[in-house]
Amino acid sequence: MKKTAILLLSCPDRNGLVSRISNFIFERGGNIMNLDEHVDSDEKIFFIRVEWDMNNFSIPASDLDEAFAPLGKEFNASWRIEFTDKKLRVALFTSKYDHCIQEILWRQKLEEFPIEIPLIISNHPDLQSLADQYNIPYHIFPVMNDSKKIQEERELSLLKKHKIDTVVLARYMQVLSPDFLAGFGDRIINIHHSFLPAFIGGNPYKQAYKRGVKLIGATSHYVTEELDEGPIINQDIIRISHKDTTRDLIRKGRDLERLVLARALHLHSEHRILVHGKKTIVFD
Amino acid sequence: MKKTAILLLSCPDRNGLVSRISNFIFERGGNIMNLDEHVDSDEKIFFIRVEWDMNNFSIPASDLDEAFAPLGKEFNASWRIEFTDKKLRVALFTSKYDHCIQEILWRQKLEEFPIEIPLIISNHPDLQSLADQYNIPYHIFPVMNDSKKIQEERELSLLKKHKIDTVVLARYMQVLSPDFLAGFGDRIINIHHSFLPAFIGGNPYKQAYKRGVKLIGATSHYVTEELDEGPIINQDIIRISHKDTTRDLIRKGRDLERLVLARALHLHSEHRILVHGKKTIVFD
Amino acid sequence: MKKTAILLLSCPDRNGLVSRISNFIFERGGNIMNLDEHVDSDEKIFFIRVEWDMNNFSIPASDLDEAFAPLGKEFNASWRIEFTDKKLRVALFTSKYDHCIQEILWRQKLEEFPIEIPLIISNHPDLQSLADQYNIPYHIFPVMNDSKKIQEERELSLLKKHKIDTVVLARYMQVLSPDFLAGFGDRIINIHHSFLPAFIGGNPYKQAYKRGVKLIGATSHYVTEELDEGPIINQDIIRISHKDTTRDLIRKGRDLERLVLARALHLHSEHRILVHGKKTIVFD
Amino acid sequence: MKKTAILLLSCPDRNGLVSRISNFIFERGGNIMNLDEHVDSDEKIFFIRVEWDMNNFSIPASDLDEAFAPLGKEFNASWRIEFTDKKLRVALFTSKYDHCIQEILWRQKLEEFPIEIPLIISNHPDLQSLADQYNIPYHIFPVMNDSKKIQEERELSLLKKHKIDTVVLARYMQVLSPDFLAGFGDRIINIHHSFLPAFIGGNPYKQAYKRGVKLIGATSHYVTEELDEGPIINQDIIRISHKDTTRDLIRKGRDLERLVLARALHLHSEHRILVHGKKTIVFD
Repeated sequence: MKKTAILLLSCPDRNGLVSRISNFIFERGGNIMNLDEHVDSDEKIFFIRVEWDMNNFSIPASDLDEAFAPLGKEFNASWRIEFTDKKLRVALFTSKYDHCIQEILWRQKLEEFPIEIPLIISNHPDLQSLADQYNIPYHIFPVMNDSKKIQEERELSLLKKHKIDTVVLARYMQVLSPDFLAGFGDRIINIHHSFLPAFIGGNPYKQAYKRGVKLIGATSHYVTEELDEGPIINQDIIRISHKDTTRDLIRKGRDLERLVLARALHLHSEHRILVHGKKTIVFD
Repeated sequence: MKKTAILLLSCPDRNGLVSRISNFIFERGGNIMNLDEHVDSDEKIFFIRVEWDMNNFSIPASDLDEAFAPLGKEFNASWRIEFTDKKLRVALFTSKYDHCIQEILWRQKLEEFPIEIPLIISNHPDLQSLADQYNIPYHIFPVMNDSKKIQEERELSLLKKHKIDTVVLARYMQVLSPDFLAGFGDRIINIHHSFLPAFIGGNPYKQAYKRGVKLIGATSHYVTEELDEGPIINQDIIRISHKDTTRDLIRKGRDLERLVLARALHLHSEHRILVHGKKTIVFD
Repeated sequence: MKKTAILLLSCPDRNGLVSRISNFIFERGGNIMNLDEHVDSDEKIFFIRVEWDMNNFSIPASDLDEAFAPLGKEFNASWRIEFTDKKLRVALFTSKYDHCIQEILWRQKLEEFPIEIPLIISNHPDLQSLADQYNIPYHIFPVMNDSKKIQEERELSLLKKHKIDTVVLARYMQVLSPDFLAGFGDRIINIHHSFLPAFIGGNPYKQAYKRGVKLIGATSHYVTEELDEGPIINQDIIRISHKDTTRDLIRKGRDLERLVLARALHLHSEHRILVHGKKTIVFD
Repeated sequence: MKKTAILLLSCPDRNGLVSRISNFIFERGGNIMNLDEHVDSDEKIFFIRVEWDMNNFSIPASDLDEAFAPLGKEFNASWRIEFTDKKLRVALFTSKYDHCIQEILWRQKLEEFPIEIPLIISNHPDLQSLADQYNIPYHIFPVMNDSKKIQEERELSLLKKHKIDTVVLARYMQVLSPDFLAGFGDRIINIHHSFLPAFIGGNPYKQAYKRGVKLIGATSHYVTEELDEGPIINQDIIRISHKDTTRDLIRKGRDLERLVLARALHLHSEHRILVHGKKTIVFD
């Protein structure tokens, strides 16, 4: 596998952005392998993802941030550069349902994601043996009303110790506190078992059953302080009918949840997502 | 085309319902062509749609209601019997957008629906020429704040005069009043341009754009007093991305709206829908 | 879980079939829980699946075949009666790819299928540890050109010994011989990684890539002597683009294969499928 | 609407292509509005679509081909430059079915496509009145076995006279001869009513019904000499069941055909398609 660099950048739109950025790469011996850009014509904002081969690049990876900084400043841009030889470090949070976490672990074994999974965190002991099968340490932090604050601090410290980049909530049945979000940042991916913004909150399948919808969905999104209101990464639906009981919705929805969450993690791990306000730009 | 009868019935579940009903038909010389049933096991309610050939049936259509009444009473059932040689009389309500009404008129010409369309009602003159192409009378009732009540009364009287069975709101941009609903009844089909219950109310595409969803939808439902809360008949979605502007959503959504509304009318016109509370049983 | 009986029957269409069959059940104290029927109006053939509660039924399960036989004979029908308290005994055949078999084992653990899996048969040792995790005996029969006949005989004898009802080919990379098919019968479900009849035979993803299709599919079907020509149970597709390499097709196709195969097994295990000629009637 | 230029280019892959091309635009005062590229890593071929604002561009449209030619030559590229203020001139070919042509005419009226439709050609008189509604000249060329050659020559001459860029076969039920294809070129879009390569040739719905597939499809493609083998632009499918007769397949398939053809024309008219061998690169 080639070592490549990926620049993700957004800035106010202006003339010559693609040219200036591609020149920056070309002049230093980089061959562009993928370039995708988007202009939000309402807000006049430019978004780009560009990936290039680092093999004959004249600047080492360690100096690249410094080298690009002047251009970033000139463009008044938000930007970051990622390298494909550095795998993302992902922590999985889970509770009792195994389908989402199993899906991710299985795909990880097949090397679908460029990630490492140094640890699993759960508030229940139920999925210990699954973690064992994949040889991943499983940390149990039971969350009671009065222990939430202290447990979240322990979790944060563990994430920091293991240099975790991204948290994936694989049907983790606890709402993370604002303190946790402030401490870890915005790289937390959740799966909600409805097509948001329909059926926010608890028991979406029961809500769907009561409302008599003819399709159910699942939504993966980044977590923000407002419940189920974070930027949406991926959504999908499946058709249901009057024959389906709540139990059937849960069964059919499981298939959606794991596929939608896996696709979101796939896109995230390949650095294909730019967040802008409440929305995502997904360069797939 | 054969003349067939269709019984739609719901009642508390009990032993022998299928047997008793199919015997009723068999003993009178009817051949069952389709039978579909459903039991809501939570609420213990039985639903059935059964269609039989009237050719050698010993009771004429005109006496059938009376003949079935004792059984309906014994089962404490809600029921009705329809005949396929009697086409449903449908009035289309429209405003300025032509896509939904055009879709229905075109399918009607292809004889996809067993319906007649004796008239079109609109609050705008814009679609007069489309109505002319299909030789359907086009009645304009401009609705201002102070004229709504009187216009609805005129509409109701026109519907009554033309013995209209069903009203289809083909992107009719007015909310019908409770008086109108009380006067006409529950056979009004609407198309809402979102996957309900997401984006209830006005400008759903704009709401969808702002929320950053990755799919948009359309929902056809029976109209009730609560806005966009009636029993859902059909829903579908289409995938969108960050590239799509509100204008693109409107364009892509048009395709959904007309297909979803047409499917709903198709199911309704073949007497395949039973409404139970806030939900539909769709025997398709 | 209630004990219920399921009658699957097909016969030349005639008057009174639903009535006679539902009476047979009603008169013996059975409560019909589900009834679905279909008439092929081209060929004038009647198909029915009816399920009833055995709790107060006056005939014991063991005598039911004998009791129904006169009616079956009168109707000149093909029929069988299944009982939901008798789980189907399923053997999985596999080679090296784990995704389909893993999907089935995981769903089986969640009790999605009313089946037992007494054994797994493979021509390779690779998936032994997966079988071990689920505590299912894993039998390896390496197939070389000259050993195929003898190995298939051993497999057949093993299937017979374990009273296997159904074989599921979960990406088993061997073509079963006519002798094997004759010996075991028509209860073998395969998953083919294309939307049949497109891309019959080997390497369908490579064929799809070369043809430049914009969607790829998967098809589950019953196995017959003609390769990939058996009655289709379930199919699904996923959208692809010019960006997708053969490797991407394989990755995306895996998700289809396991879902489509799982759905087919679900339908089969609930006795929802009637085979007629080259086609299936699926009462879902 | 802004006047923009669109460069479509393919060439052997090499370093600096994006940079050189974007510089060419930037240095002449062009602002890139969209850039999408793709590298076929098997064949080492580079594809790009780049669109820029011509408002402050220093070279007039009329001189642009000449100005870009040296770069094209250096890259050994196939390329062309289109301008969005020049609408594509499209001729529709049709026979008796109105659904595809009606769909295109209706969308055209809504200004969904940047095209003009100077004429419709048909081998039957049936759709004259539809053409009249949209005020488009309708030319009838009845095709008999012995008149095909002469009629195609007349058609070609009419297309030439009207400076037609693209022919759309909207369910035109004649196979065009190699002479016609040679005379007009490769800008002919067809709709085939199956998910190719399944059910090539005549009566695909009947073929689908006989095979017992669980989904039917439609495929839009460029026409080549080999029947139904041209580069695929767009495909879609719809789910069917054993309940659907051939007649139902035709009805359901109509919806697919018109949507898939309309999408193909939309992509083509916005110059989003590059053909490479038997495949398309679709920059959507």
